Amino acid sequence: MDESRYDIGWRTLAGINDEAGERIMSLLNDIAPDMARLVIEFPYGDIYSRPGLDIKTRELITIASLTTLGNARDQLKAHVQNALKSGCTKEEIIEVMMQMSVYAGFPAALNALFVAKEVFQREKK
Amino acid sequence: MDESRYDIGWRTLAGINDEAGERIMSLLNDIAPDMARLVIEFPYGDIYSRPGLDIKTRELITIASLTTLGNARDQLKAHVQNALKSGCTKEEIIEVMMQMSVYAGFPAALNALFVAKEVFQREKK
Amino acid sequence: MDESRYDIGWRTLAGINDEAGERIMSLLNDIAPDMARLVIEFPYGDIYSRPGLDIKTRELITIASLTTLGNARDQLKAHVQNALKSGCTKEEIIEVMMQMSVYAGFPAALNALFVAKEVFQREKK
Amino acid sequence: MDESRYDIGWRTLAGINDEAGERIMSLLNDIAPDMARLVIEFPYGDIYSRPGLDIKTRELITIASLTTLGNARDQLKAHVQNALKSGCTKEEIIEVMMQMSVYAGFPAALNALFVAKEVFQREKK
Amino acid sequence: MDESRYDIGWRTLAGINDEAGERIMSLLNDIAPDMARLVIEFPYGDIYSRPGLDIKTRELITIASLTTLGNARDQLKAHVQNALKSGCTKEEIIEVMMQMSVYAGFPAALNALFVAKEVFQREKK
Amino acid sequence: MDESRYDIGWRTLAGINDEAGERIMSLLNDIAPDMARLVIEFPYGDIYSRPGLDIKTRELITIASLTTLGNARDQLKAHVQNALKSGCTKEEIIEVMMQMSVYAGFPAALNALFVAKEVFQREKK
Repeated sequence: MDESRYDIGWRTLAGINDEAGERIMSLLNDIAPDMARLVIEFPYGDIYSRPGLDIKTRELITIASLTTLGNARDQLKAHVQNALKSGCTKEEIIEVMMQMSVYAGFPAALNALFVAKEVFQREKK
Repeated sequence: MDESRYDIGWRTLAGINDEAGERIMSLLNDIAPDMARLVIEFPYGDIYSRPGLDIKTRELITIASLTTLGNARDQLKAHVQNALKSGCTKEEIIEVMMQMSVYAGFPAALNALFVAKEVFQREKK
Repeated sequence: MDESRYDIGWRTLAGINDEAGERIMSLLNDIAPDMARLVIEFPYGDIYSRPGLDIKTRELITIASLTTLGNARDQLKAHVQNALKSGCTKEEIIEVMMQMSVYAGFPAALNALFVAKEVFQREKK
Repeated sequence: MDESRYDIGWRTLAGINDEAGERIMSLLNDIAPDMARLVIEFPYGDIYSRPGLDIKTRELITIASLTTLGNARDQLKAHVQNALKSGCTKEEIIEVMMQMSVYAGFPAALNALFVAKEVFQREKK
Repeated sequence: MDESRYDIGWRTLAGINDEAGERIMSLLNDIAPDMARLVIEFPYGDIYSRPGLDIKTRELITIASLTTLGNARDQLKAHVQNALKSGCTKEEIIEVMMQMSVYAGFPAALNALFVAKEVFQREKK
Repeated sequence: MDESRYDIGWRTLAGINDEAGERIMSLLNDIAPDMARLVIEFPYGDIYSRPGLDIKTRELITIASLTTLGNARDQLKAHVQNALKSGCTKEEIIEVMMQMSVYAGFPAALNALFVAKEVFQREKK
């Protein structure tokens, strides 16, 4: 029975962003519903639910990773929103992205900052 | 006069790891001494010295980025050491690397954990 | 005389997707016509035409590679179409992409699935 | 209770390579034992155990992905061994790697071929 | 006083493209003005201003790097413009991108060529 | 008949480094001899042999690309040697690598400089 793990994942994700679970389900529902389940179970049920790091730090290291990857614009947008909801300040998010210029280069850092700009502007409205 | 910026960088890096500056100089001295200077000035003088994130968080996001890159083994080793010196626990470092399996894949996360294992074992002696 | 190699490439590509050759030519014609020729000659004339793997398997490993790269959306779209034309099922294509979450991370796998969704929806019409 | 999922993963991995599970456990045991469990549970329990692709094809697309990543030498070595144990021929493995020159470039393809060479030579003894 | 370094950067960038500095400032002004300053200071003040390579060669190696990265479309577009302004010919830019098919794969090379095509077409008007 | 293309590739590569062709053949001979042939034919027969860029510039953009990739150490070593043989100075090679810190990050640039250091030291003996 995997249900408890799914439940842990759903509760963990809902604790960060209460619309994110439904959004993942609806995006994947008609193409790969099992993948939607795995997104709840593995990242949120197995990883984010672990003690050892608070959610705020988990969101900042995710932003560091997605900025470094440089090809996960939609996921970065979602995690900038999740970081804000988890109590990260805009300044902290921007600092993470700026620091990535050292490790992943300026284009990666700049493109992440433009994503943050877009999310921050939408949040203001 | 760029000296103050170099000084800020040197002091910031020495505050993290007091042998790191000399090590960078000696590695680059006979091939690209200007690059050694730039490593002190830009990452440490311009970025790590900024307010907005404490050094502990800066080391964790660097570990997230280097784990994601997957091809910067020596730099990862150095930053695991720096993270420990900055007050990060082994558990926190391992959590960051485990979480990277979600974004950068299992090989990247596993190879980072093997680097951490090597550093932790050497520290013990 | 490189013509026979070009001919092998053209025939191999046409055997997969009879519009793909013309499409590559027209996209590159006014910027780099030699590159269009090289696309026919090297990937299709030198590689896909080889025995040792059937075209179906070749398309699946290409989808694995493009999903892993994560920054080749248009090429992934084209190869999802080619995979379908080569006899791969939608389920097989989705399984390849889901498996990539293990090696290239969830964002890469998810973004590939969204590309597949787009291609599958267009095919239905 | 996650045990059934762990059991599925262990059985799936043992079906491919009966020493691999123990090897993963021993490598991670003193640094991140939970990660060893997650390697069994997610890649093998959740993904490789799925119907829709046979293990042989799953190993070939993994080799395609690891060749493309280019920085997962140990994992590539392990999967070349697993591919051979799953019934892939040496020729098929080489064809996958050669094809990756098209998508990931020649250095990635060549470095993968050198890994395959090393594994094939050891198998012969 | 870092001003001279900023001034060197601004002059160097203006010598390549006299609108680029203002464009970077306006893009980053309301999200991360310090990052705009760092873009002037580090890449242009510290690197492009160095002797040892002429600007034309610097633009060509930047195009090689951005083509290889494959996820820095806007930066590639800007550097194709800068390369043209620095005296690179269209043919040279295309040759750099074509050569990248060897090291970074065909999708990276093709996507760069499509960016060049877009810039060249706009320049003509 | 592909021989002329192979011959062009062999002559082009021999013009850069007269031992490189034999070295590629011997490395690949017992694992993938067709791949050795393709390395001669595509990179050297189809690309490096083209007019539009001199060999010196071709070696510098290759070094830019391999530095950016960060996981092609052996190929980078070979091309640093080829760049020296083609008339590039050590200073030019170092400048290319230093500039890559802007686009690919400091770890990529530093690891490339350490490769160059190794090649330069061996050349001296």
